[in-house]
Amino acid sequence: MLKDIVLAEGSGFCFGVKRAIDIAFDVAKKHKDGVFTLGPIIHNPQVVEKLKDLGVYPIDDIYGQNIKTLIIRAHGIPKEKFEEIKKLGIEVIDATCPFVKKAQNLAEKLASEGYQVLIIGDKEHPEVKGIFSYAGEKAVVISSDEFPILNKKIGIIQQTTQPMSKVKEIVSKIVNSHNEFEEIRIFNTLCNFTSRRLETTEKVAKQVDVMIVVGGKNSANTTQLAKLCKSIGVKTYHIEDAQEIDKEWVESAKKIGITAGASTPQWIIDEVIDKIKKFTN
Amino acid sequence: MLKDIVLAEGSGFCFGVKRAIDIAFDVAKKHKDGVFTLGPIIHNPQVVEKLKDLGVYPIDDIYGQNIKTLIIRAHGIPKEKFEEIKKLGIEVIDATCPFVKKAQNLAEKLASEGYQVLIIGDKEHPEVKGIFSYAGEKAVVISSDEFPILNKKIGIIQQTTQPMSKVKEIVSKIVNSHNEFEEIRIFNTLCNFTSRRLETTEKVAKQVDVMIVVGGKNSANTTQLAKLCKSIGVKTYHIEDAQEIDKEWVESAKKIGITAGASTPQWIIDEVIDKIKKFTN
Repeated sequence: MLKDIVLAEGSGFCFGVKRAIDIAFDVAKKHKDGVFTLGPIIHNPQVVEKLKDLGVYPIDDIYGQNIKTLIIRAHGIPKEKFEEIKKLGIEVIDATCPFVKKAQNLAEKLASEGYQVLIIGDKEHPEVKGIFSYAGEKAVVISSDEFPILNKKIGIIQQTTQPMSKVKEIVSKIVNSHNEFEEIRIFNTLCNFTSRRLETTEKVAKQVDVMIVVGGKNSANTTQLAKLCKSIGVKTYHIEDAQEIDKEWVESAKKIGITAGASTPQWIIDEVIDKIKKFTN
Repeated sequence: MLKDIVLAEGSGFCFGVKRAIDIAFDVAKKHKDGVFTLGPIIHNPQVVEKLKDLGVYPIDDIYGQNIKTLIIRAHGIPKEKFEEIKKLGIEVIDATCPFVKKAQNLAEKLASEGYQVLIIGDKEHPEVKGIFSYAGEKAVVISSDEFPILNKKIGIIQQTTQPMSKVKEIVSKIVNSHNEFEEIRIFNTLCNFTSRRLETTEKVAKQVDVMIVVGGKNSANTTQLAKLCKSIGVKTYHIEDAQEIDKEWVESAKKIGITAGASTPQWIIDEVIDKIKKFTN
């Protein structure tokens, strides 16, 4: 019996990731040597290998290599690192996601206007480290309930992939615990595509027996998708590729849902669908 | 037996009211005729009568009188009215409370920068009518749960005498119900003196058997003090002057608390204390 398989709309590569990959392939065509990306362009080994074949190599740091052109990946990098690179006379191709750039710019503007900048997000995430570097001395990253001492004038922004529900919860808590504020200014720096993917995933998860979430185990936005599905109460499996799928997961299900994180290429999603079809036909 | 009587700190005339009265008496000294206040300078007949003796008369509107000098009271007036007065060539003495002026200025600034201005307050209150006139076409006054359709970019200010707890509650609801905001900007335009009086009143109300709240029955800030005391569970009487006090209210109480609204003169508070002492000695 052919199973009913539903793929959440907007699964896979997001706008910022697609753009960064396009930029990298474009640079590979035009430049012959000395082209690098600072960190892997996305958390996907196949894409990274393909770029290597074209002469674009990922590096961890800017020293010890003869770098002519350096591509900044979608997450962005800290301000100090950017300045360091410029000083070395390296040509910079900035593929920072425009949503992340917006957050960086707002962080810098708020800090320069005297606001204490609060960033809702994961302080270990490269994107947040980048935004934080623009947010001035008083900046704080907030991920849950432990609030810092709040200044009278605060500006709140977010890591682009945070869920809106969490942002609202934290902002409400800040408003309610801040007794002597002069001004609280909240900018929405969430990525539309991520919010949309969370919505479509929720919709699918509510109508299926099993959810297969595809993407890096260390990918924040994929982990968030898996967490969301589990919170709805549907049986959820988080996998990195089709090889991991167990026949038992899907054979007894009537309807199977699939969603995928922002750095999951379409061909991995296709393989997952094929494998499920094979197991359930 | 002499009863224990506790007066809440900061009871009576607030900073803005004191300032407006001082300005009115000062103008009365310098100008000989044609001096008016637009509306009574405060909601207290005795003060108004005293100013009349000095040649300062309250009027409801600017027409039909030979006005040379017009005093704007602490609540402020709508922008259009201000411009109308200026056009008539009348000398304006602006005794608008600096806290109210700040709210008017912020309303105008936010509107000019494209924000939809939300004013938390009572839309029938003269102060709010004044602030609203500066807040642009999209402005809305919010007093409870009925929210308007919210624009993507909103600026929130408050009537100066609103309680902070209500402001926080409404702001939280706005943040939680607004799904597609770009920016939410909240300025604290509450009056420090009013907030302080609410705090000291709460402190007193928690330690007494009876609370006597002194001030106009139609005074918003006095009504708010009475409401606060009742919510704490203490027996509360809202009076306008000492004549209203009933012996029965106080004779069996061990400890009696007193608080007074922003337009209650000190001598009325003194009379209330004397009356209670008389009843309980």
